[in-house]
Amino acid sequence: MDIERIAQRAADAAAPYAATAPRERAAALVAVADALDEHAEELIGLAIDETGLTRPRLVGEVRRTSNQLRLFAEVIVDGAYLDARIDEADPDYIIGPRPDLRRALEPLGPVLNFAASNFPFAFSVAGGDTAAALAAGCPVVVKANPGHLRLSRRTAELVAGALAGAGMPDGVFQLVEGRQQGVDLLKDPRVRAGAFTGSTRVGRLLADIAAARPVPIPFYGELGSVNPVYVTAAAARAEPELLSGFLASVAGSAGQLCTKPGFLFVPADAELGPLPAEAVEHRLLNPGIGRAFEERRATVLGASGVTVLAEGAVRADADEERFATPTIVELPLADLLAQRETLLDECFGPLAIVVRYDRFEDLPAVHRELFPGNLTATLHATDADLPGLAELVTALADTSGRVLFGGWPTGASVTAAMQHGGPFPATTAEGTSVGTAAIVRFLRGVAYQSAPQALLPPPLRDDNPWNVPQRRGHAGLSHQWGALTGRH
Amino acid sequence: MDIERIAQRAADAAAPYAATAPRERAAALVAVADALDEHAEELIGLAIDETGLTRPRLVGEVRRTSNQLRLFAEVIVDGAYLDARIDEADPDYIIGPRPDLRRALEPLGPVLNFAASNFPFAFSVAGGDTAAALAAGCPVVVKANPGHLRLSRRTAELVAGALAGAGMPDGVFQLVEGRQQGVDLLKDPRVRAGAFTGSTRVGRLLADIAAARPVPIPFYGELGSVNPVYVTAAAARAEPELLSGFLASVAGSAGQLCTKPGFLFVPADAELGPLPAEAVEHRLLNPGIGRAFEERRATVLGASGVTVLAEGAVRADADEERFATPTIVELPLADLLAQRETLLDECFGPLAIVVRYDRFEDLPAVHRELFPGNLTATLHATDADLPGLAELVTALADTSGRVLFGGWPTGASVTAAMQHGGPFPATTAEGTSVGTAAIVRFLRGVAYQSAPQALLPPPLRDDNPWNVPQRRGHAGLSHQWGALTGRH
Repeated sequence: MDIERIAQRAADAAAPYAATAPRERAAALVAVADALDEHAEELIGLAIDETGLTRPRLVGEVRRTSNQLRLFAEVIVDGAYLDARIDEADPDYIIGPRPDLRRALEPLGPVLNFAASNFPFAFSVAGGDTAAALAAGCPVVVKANPGHLRLSRRTAELVAGALAGAGMPDGVFQLVEGRQQGVDLLKDPRVRAGAFTGSTRVGRLLADIAAARPVPIPFYGELGSVNPVYVTAAAARAEPELLSGFLASVAGSAGQLCTKPGFLFVPADAELGPLPAEAVEHRLLNPGIGRAFEERRATVLGASGVTVLAEGAVRADADEERFATPTIVELPLADLLAQRETLLDECFGPLAIVVRYDRFEDLPAVHRELFPGNLTATLHATDADLPGLAELVTALADTSGRVLFGGWPTGASVTAAMQHGGPFPATTAEGTSVGTAAIVRFLRGVAYQSAPQALLPPPLRDDNPWNVPQRRGHAGLSHQWGALTGRH
Repeated sequence: MDIERIAQRAADAAAPYAATAPRERAAALVAVADALDEHAEELIGLAIDETGLTRPRLVGEVRRTSNQLRLFAEVIVDGAYLDARIDEADPDYIIGPRPDLRRALEPLGPVLNFAASNFPFAFSVAGGDTAAALAAGCPVVVKANPGHLRLSRRTAELVAGALAGAGMPDGVFQLVEGRQQGVDLLKDPRVRAGAFTGSTRVGRLLADIAAARPVPIPFYGELGSVNPVYVTAAAARAEPELLSGFLASVAGSAGQLCTKPGFLFVPADAELGPLPAEAVEHRLLNPGIGRAFEERRATVLGASGVTVLAEGAVRADADEERFATPTIVELPLADLLAQRETLLDECFGPLAIVVRYDRFEDLPAVHRELFPGNLTATLHATDADLPGLAELVTALADTSGRVLFGGWPTGASVTAAMQHGGPFPATTAEGTSVGTAAIVRFLRGVAYQSAPQALLPPPLRDDNPWNVPQRRGHAGLSHQWGALTGRH
C-alpha cells in the first residue's frame, strides 16, 4: 500500500477517533488485549522463531503487553490524563475582568511508531507507544521492525480486527514495512508525532528528520543506555550473591535489553565471590546484532587492563545467526577513564564490565562525566551508608530517568509511577515510553474562551458527561502570597 | 561577561536552586514581583521611551507581570505541578511482583530565554517564560531584546537583587545581550532548554540550532500567528459595533501583538456599519519593525480585489521611527485564495483584512487549508447558529491553541486554563507560554525504585513534608476493564 493512501487513511481517521467516548475507546483497547491473549500461543511461536527469545520471556511479555492495554483503558475512563481546567469568568479579577476559560488536552493526530527489535510484543506493533497513542485518541501507523515481520503482520491483523470489531474508525491502525516507507511517512505533513525504540544512530537520524520538516513534529525516541550500577563497600560485603544477580540481569534475553546494566562499579578491594559456572547459550536477535556484538566483545576483551571474569563465547551458525554465552570482564576505573572512547558505548548483547574504584567519594563526579544520559542508574548500599549518599543520588537523578536502590534495572513495571526515558541519548525528548504517563506525549492543550456549553468538548462541560476530574480555579489557591512574605 | 562564565554560573546554581523548598522559592518570586511594582514608575518611563508603547498599556502590563510571578508562587506552594505519583510495592501484581515506584517532576536545569520586543515586561526579562522556569526550579539566562536594552538591564538588576535578597543562589538569574551571545549559549551543553517569543524566521533558526546540538534540547518558541475571526450572518446582523471592536483589537499596541486578529471573515452581503473615523497615531516598536510594516502595508494595499475601509497612514521621523494609524482593507475570499502567497503572512503592525465569504459551510475547509497553525481562532455566532457550528469549531480547535466565542483574541488571561501556543508556526513545541501550565515545559520525570525514605525527594516521601498532592495507585482504578466488555 502506498504512503499517500496510508497517510490519508490515518488523517481521515483522526477526527472520528478523537471524538470517540472514553468507554468506547477503552473497550476497544481491551478488545485488542483480549485478541493478543487469545492468540498468545500462535504469536509466541512466531516470536520464538523470528527472534530467538525464550518461551518464558515471551509468555511474560505478552501478558505485560495485554495488561498494558488494559491499564490504558483504565486511564482513559478515569480521565485525569485530560488535565481539565476550568476558570469561570471573574469580573473582579485582580488585574481586570476575566472571561470564562477552559482547557483540556486533545489528541495530536496520527502517530508514527517505529517498532523495536528486542521486545516483539511490548515495544512493537501493539506495544507501549501504540497503546499510549491509541489511548490518547490518535490513529497509529506502526513501521514494522524487520526482525520479526511475520509476527508483526499477524499482530497487526489482530489489532486492526479488534479495533474494527469494537467500532473504531477505518484507518485507526495500520502497519508499514521498510525503512523508506518509515522515512517517507515521518516526512508526511499528516503525521503529527513520531515514536521510536532502537539504536542511537538510527534514532538520531529520524529525530533530525522530524525536527527538519517544514512543520517540525515531536519525536519520542528511546535510543541508548548503559545503566551503571554503583556498589558501596558495605553493600559488597553484605551481598555475597552480587555477581550472580548482576550476571542474571546481564544475561537475561541475551543482554538485549535497553535497561541491561552495562557497568558495575565496586570497591577495588571488594571480594565479590565467584560467578556461577554454567551459562546458557542464547541466540541473538538477528545476524546484524550478532555481528555487532561479536565485534564489540572482541574490542572489550582486547582493552588494556582487562581481567576476564567470565569469558563466554559467541558462535555463528550456517544462517549467520549468532549464539552467545555471557562475557563479564573487570578493569580498574583508571583504565576505563583512559579508554572511554572505546569502552563507554552501549553493548547490545550479553556483555558487561565490572569497574574497580578506589574512592567512593569520586563517584558522583565520575558518573556525571561518563554517564550524562541514561534510562536508569542503580545504587547498592546499606543503611549504614545512608548519610553519605545524597551527592551520588543527586548525580544519578540528574542524569537518569529511574534511580534504583538495590536490585537490577532490567524489567520496567508498567505503572503510573514508571519513568522510562532520560536525558539524551537515553531519549530524544522529555517523557516516558513505559507507564501511564506516556499518554501525555500524544496530547496538546486547547483552551476554549466564553464557549457555549453545547460547543465545549465533554471534559470541559459543566454537566461533565464523562465524569472526569475537573480542576476549578487556580489550583484552589487565592492570593496566599501575602502569607509567604507577610508584606501584603 | 563571557559565555563560558555565564553558562558555568547557571550550571553551578542549578543544584542548590533545585533544592530550595517551595515556600522559599515562592517567596523569592513574590520578592521579584514586589520589586517590579515598587519600581513600576521608573520602569514604565524607560519602556515608553524605548518602545513607544502607551502608559496605560504599560501600567497594565507591569501589573500583569508581577501578578504572574505571584501566581507561580501559588503554583509552587500548591505542589500539584510536581505530578507526584506513588505506586507502593505489590507482591501480587497481576503480571508479577512489583517494586515500590515513585515518580515526580524535577527541574530540567538552566533555561535560556530570548525576550520579545513587543511586551517589554510580560514576555521579556521578568516575563512569563522567566517566571515559569524560575518557578520550576531552573536557573534562567535571559537574552535581552535589543529594542529595550536599558529597561532590560534595569529590570535584570531588580530581579537579580530580589532573588539574592530572598536567599536564592548566586547565578540563578543572568542577562546577556547580543545575538551571538544568545546563539553561543543556545549551543552550550550546560543550557538545558530554550524559550523564545518573536518572529517565525528567527524562531525557526534558533529551534533548528537547539535540535541540531550534539545533545538536542527542547526549544519552546512562540513564532507567528494571524488569528482569524469568523462571523456568521446572524452575528453580523446582531453586532452593529462589529467593525469598531475589530478595529480596537487591531489597533491596540499598534497591532504589535501576537494575538492581533489579522483576518475577519464576514458574509459577502453583510452590512457592517461604518468604521470609527478618528484614529490615534501610534509609534511602532523600532525602525526595523516600522520598515517591515510599511512594506507589508504597501503590498496589501496593492493586492488585487482590495477595497480600502480605513486607509490609515505611516510616516517616518528623523530617527527612522515609524508612526502609524490603522489600515483596514476588504476583499472577496476568492481573491485571498488567489493571492495566498503574498497575503497570508503575519503583518506585525496595525493592519488587518476583512474577507467576504459566500458560503458559511465552506469555512471549515478554507480554515484548515489557510490557517494550519495559530495561537487563537475566534467565532462570532448567535444561539440560533449553534446547531451548524460543530464542524468549524473542530477545525478551529485542531489548528489553534485557544478558541474564542465572541470577543477578540488580544489579551491573554494568565490563569490555570490559559493555552498560549498552537500548532507550528504558532509554537515550535507543544506547551503554553502563558498561564500556570507553562511550568511543565521546564520539568522532567524521575522515578525512584525501592528508595529508602531518607533518600527520596520531599514530594515523594510518606511524611510529605511539602504537603503536595500525591497520587497513589493507578489513578484509583483496579481492573475495571471487565465492566467495559462484560467478558471478564
